[in-house]
Amino acid sequence: MPGEFEPHAGCWMLWPERGDNWRLGAKPAQQCFVAIATAIARFEPVTMGVSRAHFEDARHQLPAAIRVVEMAHDDAWMRDVGPTFVVHDQRGLVAGVDWGFNAWGGLDGGLYFPWHDDDLVAGKVLEIAGADRYRAPLVLEGGSIHVDGEGTLLTTEECLLNPNRNPSLSRAEIEAYLRGYLDVERIVWLPRGVYLDETDGHVDNLCCFARPGVVLLSWTDDPDDPVYAICREARAILEKERDARGRVFEVHPVQQPGPLCQTAEESAGLAYSHSAKPRRPGDRLAGSYINFYIANGGVVMPLLDDARDAAAVAAVQACFPDREVVGVPAREVLLGGGNIHCITQQQPIGSQST
Amino acid sequence: MPGEFEPHAGCWMLWPERGDNWRLGAKPAQQCFVAIATAIARFEPVTMGVSRAHFEDARHQLPAAIRVVEMAHDDAWMRDVGPTFVVHDQRGLVAGVDWGFNAWGGLDGGLYFPWHDDDLVAGKVLEIAGADRYRAPLVLEGGSIHVDGEGTLLTTEECLLNPNRNPSLSRAEIEAYLRGYLDVERIVWLPRGVYLDETDGHVDNLCCFARPGVVLLSWTDDPDDPVYAICREARAILEKERDARGRVFEVHPVQQPGPLCQTAEESAGLAYSHSAKPRRPGDRLAGSYINFYIANGGVVMPLLDDARDAAAVAAVQACFPDREVVGVPAREVLLGGGNIHCITQQQPIGSQST
Repeated sequence: MPGEFEPHAGCWMLWPERGDNWRLGAKPAQQCFVAIATAIARFEPVTMGVSRAHFEDARHQLPAAIRVVEMAHDDAWMRDVGPTFVVHDQRGLVAGVDWGFNAWGGLDGGLYFPWHDDDLVAGKVLEIAGADRYRAPLVLEGGSIHVDGEGTLLTTEECLLNPNRNPSLSRAEIEAYLRGYLDVERIVWLPRGVYLDETDGHVDNLCCFARPGVVLLSWTDDPDDPVYAICREARAILEKERDARGRVFEVHPVQQPGPLCQTAEESAGLAYSHSAKPRRPGDRLAGSYINFYIANGGVVMPLLDDARDAAAVAAVQACFPDREVVGVPAREVLLGGGNIHCITQQQPIGSQST
Repeated sequence: MPGEFEPHAGCWMLWPERGDNWRLGAKPAQQCFVAIATAIARFEPVTMGVSRAHFEDARHQLPAAIRVVEMAHDDAWMRDVGPTFVVHDQRGLVAGVDWGFNAWGGLDGGLYFPWHDDDLVAGKVLEIAGADRYRAPLVLEGGSIHVDGEGTLLTTEECLLNPNRNPSLSRAEIEAYLRGYLDVERIVWLPRGVYLDETDGHVDNLCCFARPGVVLLSWTDDPDDPVYAICREARAILEKERDARGRVFEVHPVQQPGPLCQTAEESAGLAYSHSAKPRRPGDRLAGSYINFYIANGGVVMPLLDDARDAAAVAAVQACFPDREVVGVPAREVLLGGGNIHCITQQQPIGSQST
């Protein structure tokens, strides 16, 4: 599995549609997704998967250069439901790992039911991409792992060892699958993700690679914030661990926004459904600037209408001196439970099998 | 627009699903489509568009080498709802003409309602193919035209001049659109298609090009059959006309099957719906061996469990000395109102725009 910072053939996304997770019939989120897709499309081709019912509207809202394909889904988190693309070292052939998916915890803390269309998304992407599909006997979301492309994987115990994902597998068995499917050697386990992250602490909202050996980490210096302990315990582990090549990690903290909370107006814009996670006024949002997408020559990162936005852009830019950092207002994505990294999935460059 | 006999990048199809047009829940038709797709896939890549509800089943029934993509449709006639691919002479760029579609006659003799998903198919194919889309202000089905790729187009007055397609357009205006979108110079109008062809006489069930100047024509020598006059009037026109390069047409008659009729058992296997065309026991089927698909190095043609099958294969083979002719039992497609040419759409080789 190449690092996200390696060259891409393009980026896959899904269109936000469900009114019980995206307020006001998902219209503000759709406009936000359009802005994000448009920003990424400056750097690489973007394909948007859209359900039959929303196809015409999405095609109309999106710029012509963005490819729109019909693809049913239960929600719009392509990072978590899409394939994890891998490249065969010898032949350069691109293939995809199609993990099991249970909506971040199934009937034990998952975020909605059913999730069957989501589980088919990876296979549908791989059909269109003309890439082989490896169905893995492991429930895993793409947002719960980051790799450096040189044998190192970052993840969190809170998510990967959660009994609502793979209750019958031990840590060693999960590690064996990660090694086998992704060709990684060193797995760095951080204990927890961002406070109240409803994915059970996906690493991609807390920490990511800028390049091998260099990591960005969401941060706060407020001792009253639960994230205070979380980011410090993560840094302590990163400082102690070595990557697969034996390097010490260079850790760059990025001050988090907020704390940000759901407003009453935002809550009132949601449709009710029995199975979807309730989003109440005052609920704290798992805000983080780390949840960005690394594109070919660019970084597309969330702006959160917060006083720390400008400093966050500067901090990210400092870690990516050769890329143009583009901030896109993305509170609407955060309201849905994630951010730009969660709604994107890179396809690395390689040869196709068909 | 290249001739069908020119090199293809691949073939597009749609999965038969509706139980009011395909008997026994479409299962026999699906098995027939699998056999046809498999036969074509021996010669070139095949992509099958399948609705969300049937995706898993189609993926399971089809060989792995056939690409399956999600694509809603009202029925499975890719020839008529798919794009007509064209190639820019200068740049070799492939694009597609997206004609208007009204289910072969709209509310005035059309075969079902609604047809909105069908009308979106061409655009969806072009998104996946990465080809530009030209939306034409003309209702037209791909099965109503054949071209020789050198400036000649064959069509029928029964279909293209039918007031249920483009009532506000004159013959000259329709010709102008065909010339403009397909870059043809000479349009040869045959009066009628095959007897009782519910498409209003699509040319592709009566007559086609083997190569420039060489035409196959469905034929009968039975003076009591209504096709007797139809094929003779077509031959008379072909003998009188010249193609765009001034050539006389070489016409090869192919004896039609049957007459073939719907059985009571076949009728009984259909679901009832208010808008779909009724198919009654004893209804004559518009059987023809001309309704074949020309693939790279092959011809995939219908076998109709008829005494004339073998002679038809030999007659087609004689017209395609450099191709392998493969017969596939296809009565199930005929029962739905067409045959192999109607359910396929070739994409010529060229460069893509994206």
